Amino acid sequence: MASKTRLCVDQPLGQGQTVPLERAQAHYLTVVMRLAEGAVVSLFNGRDGEWDARIAEAGKRGCLLVCERQTRAQDVPPDLWLLFAPIKKARTDFIVEKAVEMGAARILPVQTDFTNSERVRQDRLQAHAIEAAEQCGGVFVPPVEELQKLGRLLDHWPDERQLMFCDETRLGQEHGLAGAGSGPWAILIGPEGGFSQAERARLAALPQARAVAHGPRILRADTAAVAAMTLWQHMLGDWR
Amino acid sequence: MASKTRLCVDQPLGQGQTVPLERAQAHYLTVVMRLAEGAVVSLFNGRDGEWDARIAEAGKRGCLLVCERQTRAQDVPPDLWLLFAPIKKARTDFIVEKAVEMGAARILPVQTDFTNSERVRQDRLQAHAIEAAEQCGGVFVPPVEELQKLGRLLDHWPDERQLMFCDETRLGQEHGLAGAGSGPWAILIGPEGGFSQAERARLAALPQARAVAHGPRILRADTAAVAAMTLWQHMLGDWR
Repeated sequence: MASKTRLCVDQPLGQGQTVPLERAQAHYLTVVMRLAEGAVVSLFNGRDGEWDARIAEAGKRGCLLVCERQTRAQDVPPDLWLLFAPIKKARTDFIVEKAVEMGAARILPVQTDFTNSERVRQDRLQAHAIEAAEQCGGVFVPPVEELQKLGRLLDHWPDERQLMFCDETRLGQEHGLAGAGSGPWAILIGPEGGFSQAERARLAALPQARAVAHGPRILRADTAAVAAMTLWQHMLGDWR
Repeated sequence: MASKTRLCVDQPLGQGQTVPLERAQAHYLTVVMRLAEGAVVSLFNGRDGEWDARIAEAGKRGCLLVCERQTRAQDVPPDLWLLFAPIKKARTDFIVEKAVEMGAARILPVQTDFTNSERVRQDRLQAHAIEAAEQCGGVFVPPVEELQKLGRLLDHWPDERQLMFCDETRLGQEHGLAGAGSGPWAILIGPEGGFSQAERARLAALPQARAVAHGPRILRADTAAVAAMTLWQHMLGDWR
């Protein structure tokens, strides 16, 4: 089951386009993947689809690739944001990875009243999102935003964007996506301690917000993120 | 958001029942959680529901607890097995954790044609399942079986148990759970390299088996496990 090496690059891609790679990506191709001149890899940049590109020059300081053939058109996932309260490092990384696999269009770490994290390494999480897109065969890399306060985000919440948040207190109630329409959406995953009273009141008052329950067991934040995105993609997104 | 310490024990639980704890669990309560005599913890054993129990004696070599009040009746999750091909250690642990949170009734590691693992540490995975049940508020701990060959399992597949397997080659087809009935079920998650031709043929010939697709992106095995269990619980299980 050898599959082609995939790389996300910054450069434009197109028929005959040459793509120079700097040291880190050249190292990955020639040393980690042991590819030599003449080998074909798969490139995408989030704008121009996916291309087969041949390694024309392979050196220690860099590589030069030439695009030969578009293998997939660009596609963009449905307009779904994932908002989540950062948790421990490994699980935060995991949520970003899963958000890419599950087709989130934008990833927004948020600080809630019970969030422990004061900051996240946005650049590290973005790199993680790129790696996940390379792995999952996607041609789109969702932008990962800087950590921002949930309250501020709700202050300026777009009128047309619906918001699904997970509320463990709503056990036994009907699933909140029934009858929902598609269009711009966001999923909000709270921190391990749940939302504060003030945040609950705030969300309840937001006309675009819907609470959903995820069964009788308590889900960790990372599980809840995958479960919520699964239901959304299944009912309203590109799994239909 | 302090929540009560939860412990899974072997002993029977009931009104006034004394529960002696051996060294490891006593250490957890008194040293890790810093609980002293008089403190109340939450106990379950997978058979007798969940009980508030008070620490009557706390010593270095052991603790004695007394059950005071049943806080939840025993419940059993729907009859869903999770079969998965073990992958790297951290992701295998993760699949077991998620299977417990998502309410699998039995966890079966399987060896497929493209599975790298020759063996798994069943005892370690079972301990992981217990810890996940303690964390997710469940009162049921699914048994984790020893690794077995998928082929042998399919040779003796129970007539009445339906099997949903994830097939990345079925993109764009309708989701295979539409119109399915409840009852005994299993979900089979293949290894990273997918199923072999022979396994695919075998599954296609099994009347109880249904292939399902999980959207346009390739999901890692751990993501596919959570997504498949989400859809099953939502459509046929205890999230309804």
